[in-house]
Amino acid sequence: MNLLGIDIGGTKTAVCIGHADGKILYSKRIPTTSESVEAYRHQLIELCHHVVEKANLRPEDLDGIGISAPGPLDCKRGVLIAPPNNPGWKDVPIQAMVQKTFKAPVFVNNDANACALAELLFGAYRGVRSLVYLTFSTGMGGGIIVNGQLIQGVTDTGGEVGHHVLDPEGPLCGCGQRGCWEAYVGGRNVAEQLKAKIKAGNISTSIVNKAGGLDKINLQAFEAAAREGDRFALAEWDIFTDRLAQGVGNLIMILNPEVILMGTIGIHAGDFVMGPILDKLPKYAWEWPRRACKVVPSSLGGKIGELSALAVAATGLKPSGG
Amino acid sequence: MNLLGIDIGGTKTAVCIGHADGKILYSKRIPTTSESVEAYRHQLIELCHHVVEKANLRPEDLDGIGISAPGPLDCKRGVLIAPPNNPGWKDVPIQAMVQKTFKAPVFVNNDANACALAELLFGAYRGVRSLVYLTFSTGMGGGIIVNGQLIQGVTDTGGEVGHHVLDPEGPLCGCGQRGCWEAYVGGRNVAEQLKAKIKAGNISTSIVNKAGGLDKINLQAFEAAAREGDRFALAEWDIFTDRLAQGVGNLIMILNPEVILMGTIGIHAGDFVMGPILDKLPKYAWEWPRRACKVVPSSLGGKIGELSALAVAATGLKPSGG
Repeated sequence: MNLLGIDIGGTKTAVCIGHADGKILYSKRIPTTSESVEAYRHQLIELCHHVVEKANLRPEDLDGIGISAPGPLDCKRGVLIAPPNNPGWKDVPIQAMVQKTFKAPVFVNNDANACALAELLFGAYRGVRSLVYLTFSTGMGGGIIVNGQLIQGVTDTGGEVGHHVLDPEGPLCGCGQRGCWEAYVGGRNVAEQLKAKIKAGNISTSIVNKAGGLDKINLQAFEAAAREGDRFALAEWDIFTDRLAQGVGNLIMILNPEVILMGTIGIHAGDFVMGPILDKLPKYAWEWPRRACKVVPSSLGGKIGELSALAVAATGLKPSGG
Repeated sequence: MNLLGIDIGGTKTAVCIGHADGKILYSKRIPTTSESVEAYRHQLIELCHHVVEKANLRPEDLDGIGISAPGPLDCKRGVLIAPPNNPGWKDVPIQAMVQKTFKAPVFVNNDANACALAELLFGAYRGVRSLVYLTFSTGMGGGIIVNGQLIQGVTDTGGEVGHHVLDPEGPLCGCGQRGCWEAYVGGRNVAEQLKAKIKAGNISTSIVNKAGGLDKINLQAFEAAAREGDRFALAEWDIFTDRLAQGVGNLIMILNPEVILMGTIGIHAGDFVMGPILDKLPKYAWEWPRRACKVVPSSLGGKIGELSALAVAATGLKPSGG
């Protein structure tokens, strides 16, 4: 089967040709312009044709097309409702835009769900019946597989684990709720809370230098400072990983899955983030479901974007489950 | 299909004969003795034969047998690990005990999962693809259906929603963790916390009279006093329903289900508990998944015990899903 995968990220769009076993034949990226939707559509379709050609295929050789895109989106209608990094875009009918040009069926899902499907089909734990994929960037996202199938949810918001509430009196989340998991561990919120503490306490910490300024603080600088033993960063890292553990524990108690995979920070921070989570997990999950669940970094690393789009195509053509 | 259902509760065991559409032909109850397992086995098998006979059937007419029992249990091996209300029992091989006498296949699941299956097969919302069943008694339990299938979990602890943590600094739970949902809304914990507050503050409240003494405080007395406008009870009812809403909201954000059904307190307190939960839910779940999810009392009322055991048999014979 020849699959076309389109991974629409906040800054880059990757298009690839691959097979249902996750083999990528050819892949290319362009910037995700935030200007006119029409200009983007034009570039995207051109790139699709280019990638098909480079793989020595014709458009009619495609069996299916998968699109992985940031939420919120309407998967049934294939519409990007309001991509967070493209403020000009609203209700973009991405599926129809691509379907107009290609005969092969086009499937759409949000990026975190698509990554969970990629882990299920192509990852180190492929073949398990249940897994959770977690990703941490500006915000945080999740995709959940149980009984071999995605929890898509009745309004396509299944797996929005970043907005389950860890403490009703916690910090305000970008979504308007208070104390969401994302409000504690999402990149934007962590950075803002660190900034506020540093300012209020006039604290000297190497996080600021690592980031290149107080206003540029991000998860990477936070991690780097904590790794070097910066006292403030280490204390905050302890709080940060404790909240990561609470959310992971909650998912273990509710879903009792075989694997929980952490993308982004799970990959680049490795043991430095996974170690403390595992240490703290006994506070948040019973022994037998906890021991039965592997909590590990994502197994697909940098390739997960392209693979997630291929997984959406493969799953659309052949829904798993049963 | 003729199904035998065995519903093992803390105090009563109900055995019934029914069909795969939920029609109950005959049903009878005995006390769940907490003495010798062997004595109980003897009584149980006798009751099963009696019920089969009363329905004008022979043992060989049975197509399947379902057992609904309190957790923790090992469903694959069909063993009650440590029933909370029968302290003398440990690792009771309930499936083998029944299978020894009957040829029809015997299936076992925990009570909350079994109730979720009963709602899926026989309830007012039968035919939905996703639902959550919640039950509140001494502790609390949950059963989750997504994509038409139960989340059994890899160690049979899927749906243990009562032990996801609402606040890591919350009250100690019977399970050893801190701030579990059950620690806020389970009957035993609510009663203990009310008692402690009343004692410490020397508070005058009609909860005590309704219960017939400080040491007899329970959810029923709490509800009755709040309904009558007792000031302390009302303030505590507000806190109680807020924690109910937080847990319900978390399930909506993680699972995005079509229906959440509340047994026990949802049935007997009705609008008095459902109203405040719905009012508070906007703090804990986004608008579109919230509006798409019916949060309602269990639709099966007092019959759910027997029906849950029949549902375990029906699902065991014909696994749903896909």
